[in-house]
Amino acid sequence: MKDINLAKLSIAHAAAALRAGELSPLELTEAYLDRIEALNPRVNAYITVTAERARDDARRATEELAAGRLRGPLHGIPIAHKDLYETAGIRTTGGSKIHADHIPTADSTVARKLREAGTILLGKLNTHEYAYGVTTNNPHYGPTRNPWDLARIPAGSSGGSGAAIAAGLATATTGSDTGGSIRMPASLCGVVGLKPTYGRVSKAGVLPLSWRFDHTGPLTRTVLDAGLMFNAIAGYDPADATSLRLPFEDVTKGIGEGIRGLRVGVPRGYFFDQLEDEVATALAAAITELQRLGAQVCEVDIPGVLEGVWGLFGFVHAEALQIHAHAIEHRLQDFGEDLRAILGSPAPEAATLMLGLRYCDALAVGMRTALESIDVLITPTTPVTAPRIGQETVAYGDTEEPVLHAMIRCTAPFNATHLPALSLPCGFTRGGLPVGMQIAGRPFDEATVLRVGHAYEQAMDWRQRVPVL
Amino acid sequence: MKDINLAKLSIAHAAAALRAGELSPLELTEAYLDRIEALNPRVNAYITVTAERARDDARRATEELAAGRLRGPLHGIPIAHKDLYETAGIRTTGGSKIHADHIPTADSTVARKLREAGTILLGKLNTHEYAYGVTTNNPHYGPTRNPWDLARIPAGSSGGSGAAIAAGLATATTGSDTGGSIRMPASLCGVVGLKPTYGRVSKAGVLPLSWRFDHTGPLTRTVLDAGLMFNAIAGYDPADATSLRLPFEDVTKGIGEGIRGLRVGVPRGYFFDQLEDEVATALAAAITELQRLGAQVCEVDIPGVLEGVWGLFGFVHAEALQIHAHAIEHRLQDFGEDLRAILGSPAPEAATLMLGLRYCDALAVGMRTALESIDVLITPTTPVTAPRIGQETVAYGDTEEPVLHAMIRCTAPFNATHLPALSLPCGFTRGGLPVGMQIAGRPFDEATVLRVGHAYEQAMDWRQRVPVL
Repeated sequence: MKDINLAKLSIAHAAAALRAGELSPLELTEAYLDRIEALNPRVNAYITVTAERARDDARRATEELAAGRLRGPLHGIPIAHKDLYETAGIRTTGGSKIHADHIPTADSTVARKLREAGTILLGKLNTHEYAYGVTTNNPHYGPTRNPWDLARIPAGSSGGSGAAIAAGLATATTGSDTGGSIRMPASLCGVVGLKPTYGRVSKAGVLPLSWRFDHTGPLTRTVLDAGLMFNAIAGYDPADATSLRLPFEDVTKGIGEGIRGLRVGVPRGYFFDQLEDEVATALAAAITELQRLGAQVCEVDIPGVLEGVWGLFGFVHAEALQIHAHAIEHRLQDFGEDLRAILGSPAPEAATLMLGLRYCDALAVGMRTALESIDVLITPTTPVTAPRIGQETVAYGDTEEPVLHAMIRCTAPFNATHLPALSLPCGFTRGGLPVGMQIAGRPFDEATVLRVGHAYEQAMDWRQRVPVL
Repeated sequence: MKDINLAKLSIAHAAAALRAGELSPLELTEAYLDRIEALNPRVNAYITVTAERARDDARRATEELAAGRLRGPLHGIPIAHKDLYETAGIRTTGGSKIHADHIPTADSTVARKLREAGTILLGKLNTHEYAYGVTTNNPHYGPTRNPWDLARIPAGSSGGSGAAIAAGLATATTGSDTGGSIRMPASLCGVVGLKPTYGRVSKAGVLPLSWRFDHTGPLTRTVLDAGLMFNAIAGYDPADATSLRLPFEDVTKGIGEGIRGLRVGVPRGYFFDQLEDEVATALAAAITELQRLGAQVCEVDIPGVLEGVWGLFGFVHAEALQIHAHAIEHRLQDFGEDLRAILGSPAPEAATLMLGLRYCDALAVGMRTALESIDVLITPTTPVTAPRIGQETVAYGDTEEPVLHAMIRCTAPFNATHLPALSLPCGFTRGGLPVGMQIAGRPFDEATVLRVGHAYEQAMDWRQRVPVL
């Protein structure tokens, strides 16, 4: 056990150590619980630590592994869920006061699948209230702090999920992503986040923000780990009306095959126009590295991105008003300040909503058409590195914009279009803050997205760098 | 050529005759053009007959076949498109006055695929104006008449597509289906209609009624033919934002394997509560026949159907207002009476639309969950046989309802849920009107739906009966 550095531990490494008997699930779990006790008061990634459940899970996994009954690559791996994922018998707050005492009777589909895969549940992670809100989570459970600089935000809404990985407080976590909520924390916390293609991973039992644009997916330390988590949670679920009945595909199968000859499109314009200097530099270097690895890089033009993002947010707002209609009417004062303001503003009119959906579809057609002649798109994940807690705007030269606008600019287009998108670290600023790169691909082609990410990650190995806590 | 009865001709039979050289595409095309000239004035299935294009297509197919260059099972087959399908250089009216002179510069994706498959285009088929409206198509091009009784409607909106098959005016046709518009004409005209799973067949280049609920698919004389058409038109299309990137699957492959042991669910209640006596009798006999063929029949409960249908129509209305916004503002008087009234009424509010989508999703979850323990659902396609042109209501015992409500009752639930659904003949009334049975299945499981339909069709062979014209 003495050689395990939780801050660097990946699923793949942990699984190898567990299978080799160098480590037991119980030892690993106790180590995480100790570290959570020591660091969570500062990071505030967890809303609820489920120590008892974790030890039960760990004991079972330890017995099963000792008896040679291996459930799969996640057996004995300690994880934690964004607190939107319903967990049987464990409170699921949604980051809200209104759901503060909500104890589900059944697991969400993803929580069930991960339990059945033999994972160990360490707890439930902090999030923006109901995954909505502006920049600093959370009015009821306190802000999650970025492990790279505790004065900074981890981004959201899956901020606890990103910070927990960065701080070494779980081997893998789950998140949800409506406008970037998996990838933004991955970017700002220097970890990996995968938003799968819409319909790939069930949303059943995950408190919704928007039925049309919510996606569920993992945050992990490595790209391979994201693939291992994806393999475990993807699949048809009749209980989610938007889940697609597709054949199972092991997305880690060709992950190590390299990217020689792959066509990488760089959509200049919208995605690259406003970037922090050090983000621009890191991206340029990453694109050069992809070329060095054998990829063919070309520029592509994707029109109508801003319109698609506008359409997305109008629809999300209308859905959020529907989802929270009862609470808005009866408990408006129990929402935090952010949500009170947002949910107090009316939905767009039907015509505006329908026009917005048209823009989303037009953007989807543009991206999908571009992806016929290229294999993936590369963009920054966020145009800036982690802002300070409470910071309201960011600036690029003479241009200033609200933090939220900057945050979602590059991620939301892939919610509007339902395409798979991965964020992974591609460098650090001189001040020591991580920079994220986004790789997006064709519908259902998570495998290629992960393959590109893995090739880059293996060449660079940014993940040897960990925050000092 | 002398033995070919166009009123009974299937793709499979025509293809066999073409390949055997018993018939040339040119001879077949001329026979159809003659028959259209003779019968279309009475049936009014065609808005535009493209005789010149048909002869060009037929000459090319004749040459290719003579040279042994077989493109596939549709090579040399005369077809016609619902006049919502854009066709390069051929006017595409959408059944409207507003698009009366609309000559597209490119084919819709389905038209292109069918052209490339070697089909011969006979013309463009009558439809409700923009696929919307009430019961009697069409205010600008006159009503299509049901070949089984020219005083009756063929249903809509793909009424021309259904009537053309029934009258022997094309071997296969295309239709579109937002609330039942492929299956209702199939039912009332005694032919086969397939609404594939949402996302399976491209809608790019088909004038829309609703982006969320429109489906494109074929109308044919036999179930096997529907499978052959589906094979040719299904597949990923980046130009349709809702098209799904799925592997190709030949849905005719296991079509003849029979249905022994297959589990058939009969959803009593909503789908069976209000039926014409002779429709109820025909359905009961068909279900007995499925049992005789080895299927296990059980009753299933599907809740929330009416709510789902309500949600569907609210959303369709909001989308239609968006689609026609410009024409509503500038050319309202150019719509027919039906559409003027419909498009003159306001869209539901955002909250109502969002609630409606929730109902659709809840219905989808109910059906998909039921389809985990059964293979297909069986219902009537329409609760009544063909009403008279101009008839406004239908009656069952003491209950009376508008024709439109009766028409869409059993079909629209499968638009709301995006599930594949087939209609095929399952008998005739004493008055000689066809009765339709609907078979619905799991997402992307058109193969099983077609297999059940084919087994029943082969056992009964209703299609030997043709209208006297």
